[in-house]
Amino acid sequence: MTQSLSGNIHSEQFLQHQLQEVITLLEKQELEKSLVHRDISTTDLIETVLHKQQQTRLQEKFAQLHPADIAAILESLPLDQRHIAWDAIKTAHEGQVLLEVSDAVRQTLISGMEAEKLASVASQLNTDEIADIAADIPKRAMLKILRSLNSQERNELNAILAYPDNQIGALMDFGMITIRNDLNLKAVLAYIRKLGKLPSHTDKLFVVNQHDVVQGVLPLQRLLTHRPALQVADVMVTDFVSFQVDQDTAEAARAFERYDLISAPVVDSDGKLRGRLCIDSILDFVREKSDDDLLIQAGVGEQEDLFSSVWKSARNRWGWLLINIVTAFASTRIIGLFEDVILQLVALASLMPIIAAMGGNTGNQTSMLIIRSLALGQITSTNVWRMIKKELTLAVINGVFIGCIIGLFSLLLYRDVALSGVMAGAMFINLIVAVVVGLVIPLARHKFGYDPAVGTSVILTAITDSMGFFIFLALASVFLIK
Amino acid sequence: MTQSLSGNIHSEQFLQHQLQEVITLLEKQELEKSLVHRDISTTDLIETVLHKQQQTRLQEKFAQLHPADIAAILESLPLDQRHIAWDAIKTAHEGQVLLEVSDAVRQTLISGMEAEKLASVASQLNTDEIADIAADIPKRAMLKILRSLNSQERNELNAILAYPDNQIGALMDFGMITIRNDLNLKAVLAYIRKLGKLPSHTDKLFVVNQHDVVQGVLPLQRLLTHRPALQVADVMVTDFVSFQVDQDTAEAARAFERYDLISAPVVDSDGKLRGRLCIDSILDFVREKSDDDLLIQAGVGEQEDLFSSVWKSARNRWGWLLINIVTAFASTRIIGLFEDVILQLVALASLMPIIAAMGGNTGNQTSMLIIRSLALGQITSTNVWRMIKKELTLAVINGVFIGCIIGLFSLLLYRDVALSGVMAGAMFINLIVAVVVGLVIPLARHKFGYDPAVGTSVILTAITDSMGFFIFLALASVFLIK
Repeated sequence: MTQSLSGNIHSEQFLQHQLQEVITLLEKQELEKSLVHRDISTTDLIETVLHKQQQTRLQEKFAQLHPADIAAILESLPLDQRHIAWDAIKTAHEGQVLLEVSDAVRQTLISGMEAEKLASVASQLNTDEIADIAADIPKRAMLKILRSLNSQERNELNAILAYPDNQIGALMDFGMITIRNDLNLKAVLAYIRKLGKLPSHTDKLFVVNQHDVVQGVLPLQRLLTHRPALQVADVMVTDFVSFQVDQDTAEAARAFERYDLISAPVVDSDGKLRGRLCIDSILDFVREKSDDDLLIQAGVGEQEDLFSSVWKSARNRWGWLLINIVTAFASTRIIGLFEDVILQLVALASLMPIIAAMGGNTGNQTSMLIIRSLALGQITSTNVWRMIKKELTLAVINGVFIGCIIGLFSLLLYRDVALSGVMAGAMFINLIVAVVVGLVIPLARHKFGYDPAVGTSVILTAITDSMGFFIFLALASVFLIK
Repeated sequence: MTQSLSGNIHSEQFLQHQLQEVITLLEKQELEKSLVHRDISTTDLIETVLHKQQQTRLQEKFAQLHPADIAAILESLPLDQRHIAWDAIKTAHEGQVLLEVSDAVRQTLISGMEAEKLASVASQLNTDEIADIAADIPKRAMLKILRSLNSQERNELNAILAYPDNQIGALMDFGMITIRNDLNLKAVLAYIRKLGKLPSHTDKLFVVNQHDVVQGVLPLQRLLTHRPALQVADVMVTDFVSFQVDQDTAEAARAFERYDLISAPVVDSDGKLRGRLCIDSILDFVREKSDDDLLIQAGVGEQEDLFSSVWKSARNRWGWLLINIVTAFASTRIIGLFEDVILQLVALASLMPIIAAMGGNTGNQTSMLIIRSLALGQITSTNVWRMIKKELTLAVINGVFIGCIIGLFSLLLYRDVALSGVMAGAMFINLIVAVVVGLVIPLARHKFGYDPAVGTSVILTAITDSMGFFIFLALASVFLIK
């Protein structure tokens, strides 16, 4: 949470340039090594010297950079080079860098570190920052880290780790400044000056009573614009946004967007101050949640390290692919039931995938709009029925429209009125099925407390495929086959 | 950009409750109206009285709420009720509400307003806020608004509107406070007190010289923690993040995330201060971009108003559906070429959709990971080839693995070794094709300056379907048909 402005901060073009320089340094080392290898006798000595020189040059380079920039460079480096570069980063920066890299890349960095080393790196971080990376730290190192903390820090760390990822408690930090309401502003200003620095994202101070219950907030802008003689109680804002420690993070994110917040107090059920929630955590949350939703739609388990081993990536992608194999075989079993029908009218084989595919597309449109509306908190018990009614009306209109177009296309291709009629009819029915399924799956998952995005697309496609094949071939066997 | 804290700010539960109350008020009015209608003679008078009472009650309700909450309630109301509620919102709030609602809902609100009214509502807003809603304002009202601005405001508005949506200039505001570096901190504090209030999201002041060139920034935390006798020049931060007015917004969003920024100066190529970029605009941008990407994947044109007319929604969804019809027919034409083959071995009809579907799934995994990595700025000219190599290796492994599984499944179902071999072979080839296409489309679109997300999924599926059918049926006709 500490914002280091000591390193240089630059544009992405500059970052590209830095990356190129680091790679050049790393490749030079490899080249020199390979040259040295020709003369076996002195190899070890020269290699050590070269390695030292190398590390010094890399260290100088990294010392000038912001931890977030170092993290970006590490993420863009292949595994072998990444490890060499990671060794060259000064200990003073390591904690922040570890915090900034993506989860997947952090695992590759931590996997090569000893427990002692990792514990000493973690000691550079605040408790909320340790909590952010705790999931990736091996048990042994975690015990060492816990032992190095004082009892207050240990309590803080436990407090954060006690909450699941989707609750605000897991995202809070402890960088809040609390004051009493009987101070005057002059005393507050003196107090801040004595502190010497404010935690990052401090846009307001929290006003608490002797029981730590939050009574109001004092925005810095009020502190700066009101007369120093005034009391905090007269200047503070009592109508402020606060969050419950076990509240849903998605709800907090929407509140941050709605009310343009920078920081807000996190309280327990008694109104006691437990921590602080800041916009940077919210921005990360929004980005990650959206990315996860996108990757889920594409059937990828989680965001990948660009340079993770091929096997790791493979495992990340096989889960959904295997499920897809099963659903694909299951839905095409329907076709097997109608093989006689296809043998009598082989054109059906060419046309049936169209009914299945269009059903999937339409159902996905509906389910995605529902998923997004649920994520944005727009669907409530008051309006859900109106929305369902609208989607169903739309399904009927779509069914007629798309059905007619598909019927026409078929007529042009096969000059067969009955066949075209069956196409249009099957399309109409499957579009209705698709929209109903596209409505029911995300709404039901949401109602029972599951993430509506997960699995919806796979189940939906399985149903629209099976139903598409079935409806079309069944209609064909009734109306087209003598 | 002004943050009104005057209204009550509440949790979503409270918001739900408010929405329910508004709906009850609105429905009561309808009920009373319908009762009155039985007695024709006095209808008009009583209706007018009732309507007045009604509007007063609604006005009282809305007067207590934050504009963002009113916006959320309006978004959750069906069209007819939304218009009645909108009429009840006090003029003092209308501008902010218009700013907070989604684009689609804003259009429904504005469509019922006269140009004069709209111009007077817009006059409550800052120039950057007017710019945010400018796209939805009819020409005639816009001219009225322009006439009501002074020349500086007009220049500001034109400055913002001159930039396309994806450049920082379009998102900047003018709520910056500038100071000179030869002041001491005491004078700065006095200046702020004289201003009386700071623009929202002011976490730093911008230090400029007489030519308006930004020389540094003075974070409020430094202003508060350093001795008042010190000069700005000694306290200011000269190593700060600034953005070019024509820079890509996605790049700015990544910088805000990396460096945990709240506000940053926007400068032109000479380093002159042109405006300010704030975290709230960035959060909105990240949310909207991710949502757009998700909806594009599902083939929906843009985020919809939940209660827009059915026709409007239909048009929003037909674009991609029509394209899908064309690609579906095109890819199934391939099947038509092999009708003889299918007649000889009808099992092919059941199996061919599996090859097509698995190709689409695998290709989508690859393309989505590329699209996200491009959006996060992780793919550079330095590492793109390594990444392509990795994806292709993965494609080969996936091809062997998935190919074998599919072959086994087929063997279990049909007890035909040759058929299973053809399935496995076709699957292997189509997976390679899918990954190549999944790599090439987004990378090529990105290289030529297009959004890699748009259309990728549709083109990819069209290719993997056609190729899936072709490869499978061609292999079958070579190896299985005598």
